[in-house]
Amino acid sequence: MKVLVINSGSSSIKYQLLDMNNESVLCTGLVERIGEEVGRLTHRIAPDTEDAKKIKLEQPISDHEVGMTLAIDLICGENGVVKDKSEIAAIGHRIVHGGEKLHEPTLVDDAVVEELEKIIPLAPLHNPGHLAGIRVARHLFADVPQVVVMDTAYHQTLPPKAYMYALPYELYDEMRIRRYGFHGTSHGFIAKEAARIIGKSFEEFNCITVHLGNGCSMTATKEGKAIDTSMGITPLEGLVMGTRSGDVDPALHALLARTRNMTSEDVDRMLNKESGLKGLCGMNDMRDIHAAIEMGDEKAKLALDVQTYRNRKYIGSYMAVLGHVDAIIFTAGIGENDYIVRRESLKGLECFGVKIDQMNNAQRAAEPLKISTEDSSIEVWVIPTNEELAIARETKNFVN
Amino acid sequence: MKVLVINSGSSSIKYQLLDMNNESVLCTGLVERIGEEVGRLTHRIAPDTEDAKKIKLEQPISDHEVGMTLAIDLICGENGVVKDKSEIAAIGHRIVHGGEKLHEPTLVDDAVVEELEKIIPLAPLHNPGHLAGIRVARHLFADVPQVVVMDTAYHQTLPPKAYMYALPYELYDEMRIRRYGFHGTSHGFIAKEAARIIGKSFEEFNCITVHLGNGCSMTATKEGKAIDTSMGITPLEGLVMGTRSGDVDPALHALLARTRNMTSEDVDRMLNKESGLKGLCGMNDMRDIHAAIEMGDEKAKLALDVQTYRNRKYIGSYMAVLGHVDAIIFTAGIGENDYIVRRESLKGLECFGVKIDQMNNAQRAAEPLKISTEDSSIEVWVIPTNEELAIARETKNFVN
Repeated sequence: MKVLVINSGSSSIKYQLLDMNNESVLCTGLVERIGEEVGRLTHRIAPDTEDAKKIKLEQPISDHEVGMTLAIDLICGENGVVKDKSEIAAIGHRIVHGGEKLHEPTLVDDAVVEELEKIIPLAPLHNPGHLAGIRVARHLFADVPQVVVMDTAYHQTLPPKAYMYALPYELYDEMRIRRYGFHGTSHGFIAKEAARIIGKSFEEFNCITVHLGNGCSMTATKEGKAIDTSMGITPLEGLVMGTRSGDVDPALHALLARTRNMTSEDVDRMLNKESGLKGLCGMNDMRDIHAAIEMGDEKAKLALDVQTYRNRKYIGSYMAVLGHVDAIIFTAGIGENDYIVRRESLKGLECFGVKIDQMNNAQRAAEPLKISTEDSSIEVWVIPTNEELAIARETKNFVN
Repeated sequence: MKVLVINSGSSSIKYQLLDMNNESVLCTGLVERIGEEVGRLTHRIAPDTEDAKKIKLEQPISDHEVGMTLAIDLICGENGVVKDKSEIAAIGHRIVHGGEKLHEPTLVDDAVVEELEKIIPLAPLHNPGHLAGIRVARHLFADVPQVVVMDTAYHQTLPPKAYMYALPYELYDEMRIRRYGFHGTSHGFIAKEAARIIGKSFEEFNCITVHLGNGCSMTATKEGKAIDTSMGITPLEGLVMGTRSGDVDPALHALLARTRNMTSEDVDRMLNKESGLKGLCGMNDMRDIHAAIEMGDEKAKLALDVQTYRNRKYIGSYMAVLGHVDAIIFTAGIGENDYIVRRESLKGLECFGVKIDQMNNAQRAAEPLKISTEDSSIEVWVIPTNEELAIARETKNFVN
C-alpha cells in the first residue's frame, strides 16, 4: 500500500511517497516559491538508498495546482516510482491547526474543509496553505481517500487546568482560545518509539519529549497521554526558537504601542520573525551560533544560554506535573544533532537523578541513542523524528 | 528612631510610622479616592496593641498634598503618636519600578526624581503615583532624609540568561526591556526570615519564595541572591493572579486585533483587570471561590486548578535551576491564609522529597509556621510578609 503525504504551505508543497508494506520512502519532493517569478521543484527518488537520484526544475509555478501537477508527473512519469497515480492508495495531509473539533485523523469532506476555514484566525500563517493543498489534491486525486492528520491532535488529551489560560472565560466559550500545542505528530512519534525501545507499555510510560528544530516545543506525556505542552493558541508560545520569542511578558505589546507606536500585528510579526535566537544574536542557525561563540561572540553565547536555560526550566516544570518520569527524549534538527544544546539544557538536573554520559551525548544520532548513564534514574534519549512516516501510519490505519 | 513609610499610588497614599528602636508600629493609615468627589482617610493608632484606635474621615481630598497634610495632622496632632513631625527621622518611599539604574535604596534628590520619570513607560500604573507622593513629602518634610526602596531591587542579581527575553537585542539596548521582577521587598524579607529561623547563613541558603496576594509572584534565591522570578517587564507576567492573567501566548494580541478589533491597550487592560481568577470564574477573592466550589461551581474549581497548577509548574522550574533547595516559603494574603491553595500547589512534589504535614498546613499563620514533615527533604514554611517593616529597615540602615 502506497501513501502520499502532503504538507502544503502558503507558497510551498512538501511531499513524500511511502510504501507502507515496508515503510520505505519511494520519493520525496519540495515545490517552492509558488506564485513568484521563478518557482522551484526538487524531487528525490529513493532518497535513503544508494540509488538516490535528484531532479531539479526551475520555472514559474503560478499556483498550487501547477505545482502539484508537476510533482505528480515526476512521481508517475518516465522516471516515476509508480506507473500510474492510481497506485497511490491514500493521501495524508499534514494540518498544523485542527482547532478544538478536529483531532483524530479524519477523512476529508466538505465539512472538514469548512471547519479548517473557520479556524483560520487561530492559524493564519498555516491553514490557508493547507486548504490550497487539499483543494488541489481533491481535484487531482478525486477517487483517492484523503485524510487530514492534525499537528494539534496528540495534545487533545490535555486537561483543562493545562489548556485554559487565565483569561475572561468568554474568550474560550466564544472563540476557543486555549492552549492547543503543536508538533504533536513528532511528540507522539518519539514518545511511542521511546516506550517501545525501553520496553514499557505506552499506557504506563511517562516522558518529556523535547522537539528542537526551527520551531521548538516540549510535551509532558503521562501514562501514554499528553498532559501539557509548551506551545499555546499558536506555535509562538513557550521555548526560545530560531526566530520566535517563545514566552514574553504579555505587557510588551502595550509598551511598544505607547513608546514605538507599534500595532499588535507589528509586534506579532516581530515576535514570530525577528526574535528568538535571531533576535538575541542575529543568527538562527545553531551551527553559526556555536562557531560565533568559539570566536568570542558574547551575544551568541547569550542566545545559547537563554535558550538552554528556558529548556531546563520547562523540563523542571514538567517533572513537577508528571511526578515520576521514565525518560526525556530529544528530537528534530537541533535536538538530534546538537550535543551542546542537549548538555546545557540538562545541566543542573543531577538533583533529579538525571546523569548524562557526555561521551555518548557527543555523538550524532541517525539511530536512537541513549545518552544517560546506566545509573541515571531517568533515561535520556535522542530519537530522530519522522513526521511523514507518522502521518503515513495514521493515514494507513485510518483507511484500513 | 522613627521612620515613616509611604506607598503613594495614583489616587491613594498608604503610610505607616514605625519606632525602629523596637520595630513597633505607631500608626498606619490609608488615604483613598484622591481627586474624587468624596475622599476617605482611615487612620489606625497602635494597631497591633490592645489600645488600637481607628479614626475615619470622609471629605473631598483634591490632591496628594491635601491627603498627606491630613495624615500628618493625625500623626502629630491632638491624638498624635508623635508631638511634632520633627520627630520623624526618615521617610522611606515604596517604589514599584526602579528600572535598571535604581536598585539599592537611594536618597531622593532631583536626579532620582528624573530617573523615575524616565521609566514611567515601564510602569505607567505605578510610578506617576509614587512621584506625586515624593513631591509632596519633599515639600512637607524638607529637612527629613527621604529614601526610595525599589520593589525591583531584590531581583537585580538575576543573571542575563534569566532576565533577557528572546527579543530583538535593540529592545534591551535602547529601551531596557528585560525581566525586572516585583514584590522584591517581600521576597527578600521572607527569604532572610526563613534562613534565620532555619539557622542557615543567608549566603548559603537556597529557597523558593511564593508571594500569593492580589498580585502573585515566585522567586528563586540561590546562595542569598535572587536568580529568577516570575514577573517580568511589568507585574503582569507569570502566575495566575486575582485579575491578572500571568503567562499567555503572546500571539493573543494579534488574534484579538484581527477578530475583535482590540488595540494593544484594550488587551492590556483586559489582561490586567479582567483576567486571572476573575476572568475564569467571575470572582477574585479566594474565600468566595472556595465557597463557590463548595456549592459545586465548576468555573470556580477551574480557577483554583489553573492557579495552583501553574504554581506547581513554577516551583518545578525553579527547582531545576536551583539544583538544591533548602526551603519553599509561602507568604501574603493567600499564601499565609489559604491552606487549600498551598496544598494544591504542592501536590505531586513528593517526587522531589517534599512532604507536607496536612494538619500543620491547615492552620492559619500569624507567626512563621512549618508545614513540612520532619523527614521532608525540603522544608516548607508559611512566613507572614511585612513590606513596611522591610522598607523601614532599609531606610534606617541607609540613613545610618
